[in-house]
Amino acid sequence: MSRIDYVNGRYVRHKEAAIHIEDRGYQFGDGIYEVITIINGRLYDCDGHLKRLKRSLAEMSLESPLSEDVLLLVMKRLVQMNSLKHGTVYLQITRGVARRDHKFPIHAQPAIVMTVKHMRLAERQPENGVKAIIVDDLRWARRDIKTIQLLPNCLAKQAAAEQGAYEAIMVMPDGTVSEGSSSNIWIVTSQNTLVTRPASSDILNGITRQTIEKIAKDLQLSVEFRTFDVPEMLAAKEVFVTSATSLATAITKIDEHVISDGKVGNIAHALRADYFATAQ
Amino acid sequence: MSRIDYVNGRYVRHKEAAIHIEDRGYQFGDGIYEVITIINGRLYDCDGHLKRLKRSLAEMSLESPLSEDVLLLVMKRLVQMNSLKHGTVYLQITRGVARRDHKFPIHAQPAIVMTVKHMRLAERQPENGVKAIIVDDLRWARRDIKTIQLLPNCLAKQAAAEQGAYEAIMVMPDGTVSEGSSSNIWIVTSQNTLVTRPASSDILNGITRQTIEKIAKDLQLSVEFRTFDVPEMLAAKEVFVTSATSLATAITKIDEHVISDGKVGNIAHALRADYFATAQ
Repeated sequence: MSRIDYVNGRYVRHKEAAIHIEDRGYQFGDGIYEVITIINGRLYDCDGHLKRLKRSLAEMSLESPLSEDVLLLVMKRLVQMNSLKHGTVYLQITRGVARRDHKFPIHAQPAIVMTVKHMRLAERQPENGVKAIIVDDLRWARRDIKTIQLLPNCLAKQAAAEQGAYEAIMVMPDGTVSEGSSSNIWIVTSQNTLVTRPASSDILNGITRQTIEKIAKDLQLSVEFRTFDVPEMLAAKEVFVTSATSLATAITKIDEHVISDGKVGNIAHALRADYFATAQ
Repeated sequence: MSRIDYVNGRYVRHKEAAIHIEDRGYQFGDGIYEVITIINGRLYDCDGHLKRLKRSLAEMSLESPLSEDVLLLVMKRLVQMNSLKHGTVYLQITRGVARRDHKFPIHAQPAIVMTVKHMRLAERQPENGVKAIIVDDLRWARRDIKTIQLLPNCLAKQAAAEQGAYEAIMVMPDGTVSEGSSSNIWIVTSQNTLVTRPASSDILNGITRQTIEKIAKDLQLSVEFRTFDVPEMLAAKEVFVTSATSLATAITKIDEHVISDGKVGNIAHALRADYFATAQ
């Protein structure tokens, strides 16, 4: 059965899902997006995603073509039409179609598209965690807005893939770790304190990151929001990434450095297990 | 008569020019572009544009779907089909359509689209030059690649438009001027030396900039490639921008500071006149 997408008010077969070549998303990267996890047919962490979407729209002076209620309705309908039990809904809003000109068009109607992906999130960690590499963070200065300008992320992820790694950890010119190419990075200190970078324009404030923070607190773990550099990360008791599709995944090797004896640490293990328990 | 575009091997009516919503240009900004000026039906500075295109492709590990010869043929055919005498050809290449995943797809075929715009480039400067504003340069670290990730440029141009200005001049965290949102910036010192930022990953090495450099040298003007900061720019004898559509345009006001008594300077005037003379 063909997948069904949503394109500007219409449910269409995936093969036929098209937008005009002068959509500003295609010519300028002038758009934003969200990826929402589906577990057992239900949108997970949906409030957080919609709240962030609203913030991204405001930061871009962009209006949503659909009210929040209708957006939610369309997402649910799309999940249903695709018989999606486990996976993700991808949603993108751009400034619409206009004759190419950098400044915002006066009459364009923002465009919205949605696609779904069938994908079973694994309850268990990869047995020995995953590998990461370190790359320079080349991105623009407003990483807090979830824009479709993802080329540096793609280049970083591709570099990771070429080295057999799962993720690329991005490091800023001042030597501090910002985040992964499509995830947030956490470390666990020798005192079992979880450390992750504070929300700012340097990183995307991940929805899964926020959920993991709550879970950590429920587990009586202390969470500290501060920057850390590469040497501190490499010496950490545990390192793990969080994202809507990674959940909490232990990193056990960074470049040639083995982290936590190459095994999934207790905290990463516990967080992922609890994430799943709350999601059911 | 409807405009004709070129989309992946087909000449199509502009209204029907579409790409798939999973084209990586639309979801990741994973693509590059060029804008080539048409004067009297001929592609101007075409070698320079094709050379830069080739460099952008290489930096992105992206293959052109068309050989250079065929690309040139298609551009010429498009100019002819649109009876384009004066204007621009816009050409964009992306990594093609693939299921959404940051890393490069294995089987995707790069996509290519072209559009034209009818636009008569003015031989004369705007009588009193144009106004510019100063904004922070928020862009990523590889501005030397002409990618479609133009959101910060759009935001800067929009800020300019909202203040009745023609261009936004972008300033890096170290206080030096990088370039305009869609142009290169030049200043003229009290000694009549032209100064512009050296080509590096901080700026796009403009094709018109290179042509203007040649013209300046033909006019026996000395050209210095070095960085300059905002105070030096505001105190300059002249300030002007260059781009394929701006040619050389004098800036006579930057925020509230009047440059060169608010008049078009002799050098900006001469460069534009000579640019036109060589283009005929």
